[in-house]
Formats: sequence, C-alpha cells, structure tokens
Amino acid sequence: MSKIGIVGATGYTGSELLRLLAKHPDISIHVVTSRSEQGQPVAGMFPNLRGLLDLEFSDPKSAALRDCEVVFYATPNGTAMAEAGELLDAGIKVIDLSADFRLKDSQVWSQWYGQSHAAPELLAQAVYGLPELNREAIKKAQLVANPGCYPTAVVLSLLPVVEQGISGSNRIIVDAKSGVSGAGRKAAINTLFSETGESFKAYGASGHRHYPEICQSLEAAGQSSVSLTFVPHLVPMVRGIHSTAYVILEKDVDVQSVYEMRFETEPFIDIMPPGSHPETRSVRGSNVCRMSLHQPQRDMLVVLSVIDNLVKGAAGQAIQNMNLMCGYDETSGLDLSALLP
Amino acid sequence: MSKIGIVGATGYTGSELLRLLAKHPDISIHVVTSRSEQGQPVAGMFPNLRGLLDLEFSDPKSAALRDCEVVFYATPNGTAMAEAGELLDAGIKVIDLSADFRLKDSQVWSQWYGQSHAAPELLAQAVYGLPELNREAIKKAQLVANPGCYPTAVVLSLLPVVEQGISGSNRIIVDAKSGVSGAGRKAAINTLFSETGESFKAYGASGHRHYPEICQSLEAAGQSSVSLTFVPHLVPMVRGIHSTAYVILEKDVDVQSVYEMRFETEPFIDIMPPGSHPETRSVRGSNVCRMSLHQPQRDMLVVLSVIDNLVKGAAGQAIQNMNLMCGYDETSGLDLSALLP
Amino acid sequence: MSKIGIVGATGYTGSELLRLLAKHPDISIHVVTSRSEQGQPVAGMFPNLRGLLDLEFSDPKSAALRDCEVVFYATPNGTAMAEAGELLDAGIKVIDLSADFRLKDSQVWSQWYGQSHAAPELLAQAVYGLPELNREAIKKAQLVANPGCYPTAVVLSLLPVVEQGISGSNRIIVDAKSGVSGAGRKAAINTLFSETGESFKAYGASGHRHYPEICQSLEAAGQSSVSLTFVPHLVPMVRGIHSTAYVILEKDVDVQSVYEMRFETEPFIDIMPPGSHPETRSVRGSNVCRMSLHQPQRDMLVVLSVIDNLVKGAAGQAIQNMNLMCGYDETSGLDLSALLP
Amino acid sequence: MSKIGIVGATGYTGSELLRLLAKHPDISIHVVTSRSEQGQPVAGMFPNLRGLLDLEFSDPKSAALRDCEVVFYATPNGTAMAEAGELLDAGIKVIDLSADFRLKDSQVWSQWYGQSHAAPELLAQAVYGLPELNREAIKKAQLVANPGCYPTAVVLSLLPVVEQGISGSNRIIVDAKSGVSGAGRKAAINTLFSETGESFKAYGASGHRHYPEICQSLEAAGQSSVSLTFVPHLVPMVRGIHSTAYVILEKDVDVQSVYEMRFETEPFIDIMPPGSHPETRSVRGSNVCRMSLHQPQRDMLVVLSVIDNLVKGAAGQAIQNMNLMCGYDETSGLDLSALLP
Repeated sequence: MSKIGIVGATGYTGSELLRLLAKHPDISIHVVTSRSEQGQPVAGMFPNLRGLLDLEFSDPKSAALRDCEVVFYATPNGTAMAEAGELLDAGIKVIDLSADFRLKDSQVWSQWYGQSHAAPELLAQAVYGLPELNREAIKKAQLVANPGCYPTAVVLSLLPVVEQGISGSNRIIVDAKSGVSGAGRKAAINTLFSETGESFKAYGASGHRHYPEICQSLEAAGQSSVSLTFVPHLVPMVRGIHSTAYVILEKDVDVQSVYEMRFETEPFIDIMPPGSHPETRSVRGSNVCRMSLHQPQRDMLVVLSVIDNLVKGAAGQAIQNMNLMCGYDETSGLDLSALLP
Repeated sequence: MSKIGIVGATGYTGSELLRLLAKHPDISIHVVTSRSEQGQPVAGMFPNLRGLLDLEFSDPKSAALRDCEVVFYATPNGTAMAEAGELLDAGIKVIDLSADFRLKDSQVWSQWYGQSHAAPELLAQAVYGLPELNREAIKKAQLVANPGCYPTAVVLSLLPVVEQGISGSNRIIVDAKSGVSGAGRKAAINTLFSETGESFKAYGASGHRHYPEICQSLEAAGQSSVSLTFVPHLVPMVRGIHSTAYVILEKDVDVQSVYEMRFETEPFIDIMPPGSHPETRSVRGSNVCRMSLHQPQRDMLVVLSVIDNLVKGAAGQAIQNMNLMCGYDETSGLDLSALLP
Repeated sequence: MSKIGIVGATGYTGSELLRLLAKHPDISIHVVTSRSEQGQPVAGMFPNLRGLLDLEFSDPKSAALRDCEVVFYATPNGTAMAEAGELLDAGIKVIDLSADFRLKDSQVWSQWYGQSHAAPELLAQAVYGLPELNREAIKKAQLVANPGCYPTAVVLSLLPVVEQGISGSNRIIVDAKSGVSGAGRKAAINTLFSETGESFKAYGASGHRHYPEICQSLEAAGQSSVSLTFVPHLVPMVRGIHSTAYVILEKDVDVQSVYEMRFETEPFIDIMPPGSHPETRSVRGSNVCRMSLHQPQRDMLVVLSVIDNLVKGAAGQAIQNMNLMCGYDETSGLDLSALLP
Repeated sequence: MSKIGIVGATGYTGSELLRLLAKHPDISIHVVTSRSEQGQPVAGMFPNLRGLLDLEFSDPKSAALRDCEVVFYATPNGTAMAEAGELLDAGIKVIDLSADFRLKDSQVWSQWYGQSHAAPELLAQAVYGLPELNREAIKKAQLVANPGCYPTAVVLSLLPVVEQGISGSNRIIVDAKSGVSGAGRKAAINTLFSETGESFKAYGASGHRHYPEICQSLEAAGQSSVSLTFVPHLVPMVRGIHSTAYVILEKDVDVQSVYEMRFETEPFIDIMPPGSHPETRSVRGSNVCRMSLHQPQRDMLVVLSVIDNLVKGAAGQAIQNMNLMCGYDETSGLDLSALLP
C-alpha cells in the first residue's frame, strides 16, 4: 500500500482523483492539502465522497507530504513548478496534473502561459504522461507531466496518422469540443450555468494553450514537423471531450486496420466498427478513449475521438501513470464502467 | 457464482442492471433476452458496455432462463405477471423491476394500471423489495417486487415519521421531482430533448400510479392509515429524484436524532448534518439515498431526499434485493462512488 | 417619448430591461450606467443587442439620469435605497428591481438582508409593484418596489385563495423551483454550469428572503394573517419559475371558476383548462403568468404557476409598472410571444 | 393583408411559423392544416400561442388553402412535391420548408432522400430561397425552396470565399453543430432527452443530406466546382446551429473587410469585430446570422457562424422569402431581439 498525497484537491481534477483513489486497491490516501479549506472534512466539499473518505484537508506546508511515495499536484498552473523540486530531491514520485511540465521548451511555455518558468531545469527530466506514447519512459520516471485534456483526445486520435506518415505534409485540422468542467471549479462569470447553458460557441479560435502541447506530441511521435489547426468549442454539458480530426490521405491505406492494429493491446483504447459515431456519454466516468473512422471522401479521413476530460483527460490518466511508475497493474483502480445514460 | 438472467434489457433499468452486474463478484450474467434485438450484441446498443460484456440478446423463449438461479424482469408492466409463475414453479428466484407485483390489492392495481391482473394469486407471495423496510422478508422471498423510483425516495424519507407517529393524522405533502430517464427508453414525443430541455413542469398532479404504492408502504410501516398528497414534476436532467416532504409535527421530538438512529446501520442511507441540502448529483450512479431535515417553522418538518432513480430507484435496489435473497453481502457489487460533477 | 435611465445594467434583469425597452414604442433609452463598464458599448457585453441598441455604459454619477422621466434600478440590494431619494426629490419616477423597498417594515428588512436600511422614510411611500394586486396605487406612485421573482409567481397563484378565505387558517405550503438565472450574473462557484448542471436541489429550506415578502403580500391581499411554508429549489435550466402551492380547502367552492373570474380582465394572467400542467417554457421570454388547478383529493387544491423569472418576475413587470405610472397602455412593449421549444 | 395557409403545422418549423406570423403586420393566418390534429385548437398543442392565435387545425383537403395568397409547407419530405403543383396552377405562391425542391437535379435528390421525385418538372421553376444569394429571383418566384438549416449557416459563412475565389481549389472543411430541435418533433428514441442530454457526438460523418445542397449553392455562387467535407454534430441544446469552416487561403486578402463589405447592406447578417466568438444564444429566437473570422495561421481562415435553426434556418427565412415575394418590407415581422440568457 503506497501512501499517496494530493496537493490542491478542491477542483474537479482533484475531486476526481479522490473519487478514484478512494477505491484503488494498492494505495492509501495519506494527505490531501488545501490552503483555503484546511481543517475541513473533504467530504463536506464533495458530498459524493461521504462515507468513502474520512479525511480533512491539511495545510499545504504539512510535513505529511514527505511521507508519501507519490504526490499528485492538482493545482493551478505555477504551483507544481515551484514546489516539485523539493519533493523530487526527497525521492518522492511526482505527477503534475497542471501544465507546468508539459512543454519541453521553457520559452514556449512562458509565451503561452504568460509567466516565466520557475524550474526549467526539471523539464528535461519530466516525462509526458501519455502511456500509449511513452509507456516505457513513464515506468522509469520520477516526474510525470500529465497531459492536458484536449491533447489526450487529439493526440491519441492522430498517433497512427503521424507514426505512419499517412497524411504527408498536409495540414491537419482538429475541431475539438469540451464540456464546461474543463474550465475548472473557480468563481467566474463566463462559465456560469446561465452563460453556457443552451448555447454553443468556439473560443480561443486564434490560439489556445493546448496547441503547442499537441504539436509537440505529434512531432515527437511522427519524428517530423506537423502542420496543424486547432479550434476548441464549449458544449453545454459537464463532462466530455469530442475531437473531430480531418486528415487528407496521401497514402491509400486501410485506416481501420491501421488503427485497430496500433491500439490492439491498449487497455483503454476502443476502436469502434466502421460506421460508428462515439458519444461522449459512452466514456463518462471511465478511463477509455473511444474512436471511430470515416472517409466521407476517398482521400479524406475523419477521426472521431471521445474521452471523459476528468478521467482519461486528467485524474484517470494520472492514476494510469502512477500504476506504471509504481509497478502496479496498469488498469488497477481504473476498471470503471461508463455511466450511460 | 450464481447464473443470472435478465428479461428485456433494452431499457434504462435493464442497461443499468447490466452495467452493475457486469462487475458483481458473486454472479455471472448467463442470458439477456430481448424480442426485438435477438442476435444483436448487447454492447452494440449500449456502447458503454463495450469490453465489459460479451453477450448477445437471446430469444425471450430461450430455455437458458431455466438454468438461472435468479431472473430479473426489466420489462414494461404486464410481462412479468404473465411469465413469472412458470419460473417460480421451477424454483427460480424472480425480481420484478416493473410494477406488476408492487400492490397487494389486484383491484387497486387494475384501476391504476388500466388492465386486469394476470396473476393475482402471486401477490400475497410477492415481497415488496425495500430492504430498509422488509429486509428479513426479502431474505426468504422467492418473488420480489422491486419498488418504484418515486416510492423509494419518498417512503425512505418518511419511514421514521410514520413508524413513530410523529405527524399524527395530519396530511403529509410530497412534492417530488424526477429526471427524464424515469420515463424510460421508448419512442415518444413528450420526452424528446426539445420537449423537456430548458423547461420544468408538474405532471400527473391529479393522480399518479406511484401514489397507491407509496400509501401502501407508509401504512404498512406505520400500522395506520396515512393522508397523503403527492405531486410529481419533470426536471431537465437525465438521472435523479428529489423528494421534498412536508410534515406537520404533532410531537416535539429531535427529528435529526430520530432519523440518524433509525438509519444508523443502513449501508445505503446517509443522513446529512443539519443545514444541508442534498443534491441529486451527489448520488448519481450510486445506490445511496441521501437526506437532510429542516424545520422552517417549529411545527413543520421538511425532509429532503435524493436517489439515483436508475440505481437505488431501480437496478441497484434490485441487486441489493438479490444479494439478500442469495445470501451475499448486502453491498456486494454496489460499492459505487457517485459521479460528481 | 419618455426618456428612460437604467442604473446598473450589467446583470440579467438589466439586460432584459434593455432587450424589452429597445422595442418599446413609447420611450427612448436615454442613459445606461455601470461603474465597471463605463465607456464600453452595451452591445459588447450583450451581443444579442447588436444592431438594436447603440449606446455606451455611462458613469453612474452621470447627470443624464436627471434628464429622465423614469429611472430603473437593476442593481444589487443596497444601491437604490442610497440613491433613490435624490431622484425622487427631483421629481423623477423610480422603479427599483432590487429588494430595497419591498418590505414595509425596515426592521424585518434588516433582519433578512443583513444590513440596516438606508432610507426607511421612503418605505411608506413605495408601492409594491404587483399590478394584479395594486394597480390603482401603482398608477399614482412615484416610487415602485418591483416584486421578487418567487413572490410574483407565488402571490399571483394564491390571490384568489387569500382574498376569498378559501383555506381558512390552514397552513399553505409552497414548493417553488427556479432556473439558475435567478441567482444573477456574478462570479461564483455555486452557480457554475458544472455545479448546477444535471442536478437538482433545494436551498434555503430553513428560510429564504422572499418568505417575508410573500407573507406581507398575501396578508395585505387577504386582510388576515397567513401561515405559510416556502421552500425554493434550483432547476438545471436558465429561465423560469414554477410554483406548486398546496392549499387545504375549508370551503367547498368551484376553484376553477373562482380563478377564472378573478383574473378575467388581467392581460398577463392565463388560467389553463382543468387537467392542464403549465410548462415554464410556455412563458419563456413573455410577461405571462400561466396557471392550472388540480384537486388530487377533494379538500386539497394544488395550484401550478409558471413565469419567466426575468420577465414577469423582473424586467417585464417593471415595464408593466412603468406603463401604469406613465399612463401608457399597460401592455405596451410587452406583446411578446414565448419561445417554445 | 394577405391570407396565409400553413400545411402541417405540428412540428417545430410549423409552430415557429405560427409564433412569428401571429405578429406579422401584413398578413393574416387563414388556415392551418393537420391530418392528425384536425378540429383541435392550435394553441392546445403549443401553449405559448394561447391568447395569440385563435384557430383550429383544419383538414388538409380543406378548400380554404385555395383562398390563400401564400401557402407554406412545413411537412415531412415528400408532401409538398405531391401537392404544390395544384396550388401553383391556381396562382398561389408556395414556400416549401421541406427538402422537396432544394436540389436542381432530381436524380441526386432521389439518391439522398431515398425516393423518386414526384414533380421533377417543378425543379427548374423553384427558386432556392436564400435571400443573400438569390434576392432578385425570389422577388419574382412563385415557388420557393426554403433552405435547410445547415446549408443556411454554412453557405452564408462561405459566400465571400467562393464568390472571390479566395480559397482556390483547396478543400474546404465544415464542422457543423446543431441543437436537437433540428431533428424535428416526432416520436423517436435517438432524440429523447435521456439519449442526447449531457452528451455530444457526430452523426452522418460519412454523408449527410445537406451536403449536396451546400455544394450546389456554393458552386452556383462561385461559378466553379467546390471541394468540401461536411460533418454534422449534435449538441445537447434545443435551438441553434454553429458552423466552423476551415479555408486555406490562396490569396492574401483582408478577409474582415471582404466579409464586412459583402454583407454591408444585409439586414440579417452581422459580422462581429476581430477576436469575437459568436454564441448560438446571441441569435436565439431571431432571424440573424452572426459571424466572426479568425486566422490561427496566416494561410488559414476560420469562419464561425451561428443561426437559430428554427428562425433563420427555417421559419424566419421562409417569412423573409414571403416578404420578398409579396413586396412587403423584407424585415416585416422579423424585427426580433434574441433571448439571452
């Protein structure tokens, strides 16, 4: 039983970590910190955890983090990069769910995140935690940068394309859609129910922080540069991401077979039969990425891909990474059936 | 490992049974029948079950039902009463999720359900499957009538009131609200997204089929007649029931203590601290009934009670009943954390 | 053409005032103030007004308010009571959409609103702006307190009951439900889409600010004290209020006729035929209060009542009051058909 | 005052026609037919029309249609093509909101709609009713084919591109999203609230009926062939369409100016300032198409375009066409402010 710590569990990724870790057979939740909620019962804030988790939020300065084998950061951008070094020096494994360690280039990071990077020296060491791309490196990692929600859905859906060079140098277009929980749990006007309900819109159409992260992963996977356009949209639902990728085919390949073979042994990837359309609800609460392929024109591949942004797009993937880092079964604690309807 | 059969699993209670039973450690799903979907893979209809359940729908006349220890009916009203007798004669345990065996009086049943009862002789034998009320009888039952969703939320919230006679003979008022999945999965105009989204309404205000079922249970629990008004409403959400019960207090009792003591040992009842308001999402996907108590006036008790209509209000409670009937741990397969947000 | 001013139009009641007043044939919008948005185009904040309204937000200290015939306050509680006196002295008509002038007793006001009242001397002069109750007084008023959204739906639904003494001294129970826009447009966690979507809950079950306002109006209408319990709930929709009132009948009257006669000449009240259930969407965007009556038991009257909380529950009613105060046709600018679906 | 007839007004486009025509200053609704609802009050089915419209549904064989100046067909595909000829022969103007007369080639029509065309001889005469493209032809038309909802949003957003040849022969990609009311008001499982709520999916990714209609219009506008990929998606909201079009730029033009100039005099087209993102709610209930332009890469134009599928995408545009055909002011009866929030 590994002792686990969670820093900053008052948001949606943090509460989802708690929901999933509370049932994980191989670990025990040792400490959950929150500056603002210190001393309060965790289940007071998240009543779905009543009866499952008998813990109070601790002071983030708490020494208890030092007793842990693994510490998760479920904090806003900027916290983990300031604190992780100390834990790493103490030999603790760190999984950061924020964006702090996702980009390899600290200059690019600063440009998109609007602050200078506090720990550029850790970037080389950080492993990008997409198991389907980096499984072996994750197993050996001490510091894992858990991917963003959009990048998870998008990169998984395009791995076979870039690995096989199916699209040549053609522009790839990704039209992505997210539920509102992707914006996090913080006081704001623009994500009020009355601002987002019964409406649909694009946002960040001229540039979104997840763009460089997606490019970096696709380029690493394909060993060549990628020409990409990425536009995110906001859907009036709580959970779920749907990515629609448009790929002009340079090669005449049986894409269904290519995808099925690429992901054949992956425990959390499901390629649907031809003609299918994955729904976000079919993965709600589960760690699965479900995809289907269409060719409305002979040379046009459309890849539809869905995940639960809080599970495979955040907390579930973080636990998958922990399982790999700690030598547990990769699916341990993640044997979740999606809630439908 | 008991062999389990499910008759009619193309609706929401049936698919929820499948989702939960697929992970139940003590049983195996032996046969799932559907007249209309015979030969089709079950996971084709419910893609959340892809990878979890490798079964096809069978002919309802299938002999395989006879090999089962327990058969669930997740059929429209009228099917179970026509077929259950044969299975009972063969020594099979039957749990009916429809309304066929819920009312003790076949005359009353006919009046509310608009057809004559096909098996009135089984009504005496049928045990009403609300474990918090009838646990010992359920353990010995061969035929269990699984309660309706509204009656589950309402009766649980009023058990201490009627058992202790707290309200005297005063009228109890129950204002209940349900998500749309309570109407089932059938082609209809009035439960279309465009008919129910972004709107709220009452329905059945002059009389609803769950009214006699609620009265019957409260009168059984309280050993005296009950004067009740019950008005259901439709909420633009998929899952969840919220019952608000208004009780004029005849006795000056500490209702918080009365409720906490009454349900102290119940694994699926959670009485929240004073001042709380349960949200339906706090039980989404779980088998919990969560309640809180308010006294806006000294002599007025307001009981707030929430369940997931498809779990504690249908499939989860059916499994709880199965666990009792088969001698498994009552919570087996039901250790579910609710999905929030 | 009267010149109109609006103080504080960055919330939902303010933007709804703008939407409706922009088409009002008898007035012109002269000035719209906002401390935070000064100098910004109004249509930049509310893109539905692009092309309809070519105005910028002005400094609240702007002298332009003094040029107006009528000034609406669509501000948080506490602003109007500090400022209205000056405008009244200058002979300007004031309609306050906040709660500042709704309660006659400044002590009761302070108790529920948590601050002392800044202008208790104006309370006697303020007319409670429910035209169906106070039409003649409103016509002569210089200061109108526009009713709260819940009180509008609830009081209208109970006027015939209290005026006719139908219920004797029995407790009346009101179970009310509101869309999320009732909470206003301000940065907050508890009204985020991800906190309120796909869920239902009660709030303020032990006491809500609209309770004394409802009691005050019912007691004024019935000329006797009223015993009331009121519990509000939050519905995952943007607009709409549904009130369900439970009234024990002391007199054996034809309630359908009583209601139809009471509201026969009212332009904005619609009593549906027996057996009906009003939906909130049937009044979305309109100034109508639609009701139906049920008697599930012979001595139990259930009154269902729906309004659009931003129209009849706020901006529409304010304009109806303005029309009365200024001698325009009462329905001027309010000839709106509800948006369904 | 022209006499107007509506055939088949029990769906959403029909009820929206009624809502808008009931306030139209230049016409009177003479007859509304429905096979199934004959003799029933129209406002009984659509309670938002109570008090606005005092009409009953008539027999579709009713002679009253012959007294009309204009007849709208708001029927399923296949009805108008069987009946319109007779009305046209009688000199009546016909506006068909179904797909019967939208495609010029009856072979292509048959292929996509799965039935042979009953009146191919009328196709040449039918004018495609997109005023921004065909205004002069519509003024002289006796038979107008009202555009589909997707084609309206998509074609408007690409008119400047194809008219100016901005994209050369490059593939244009359109990722479109619709609210559920686009599927109509008919008993079905796949558009139930419980099937579409809290979820997002693509559909028809391999081919959708609106594809040939979009191509036909773009090719007509640009006088050259167009290479297009079109994938529609379903959004958990009632009303609204959002089209996101991706265009590789061949020419280095100031697209913002091009769009503003192209639509400068159009009463229902709104080009937002650079950096904006139109929301579907900003046009809810109105006849406006609102767009904004982005260039995430120098050679990539992204056009965001929103309409209300039932107004500019159906009933509103049909009335705009009627206004043109009858010589009324083009905006008559369409001076609608969108409902936000």
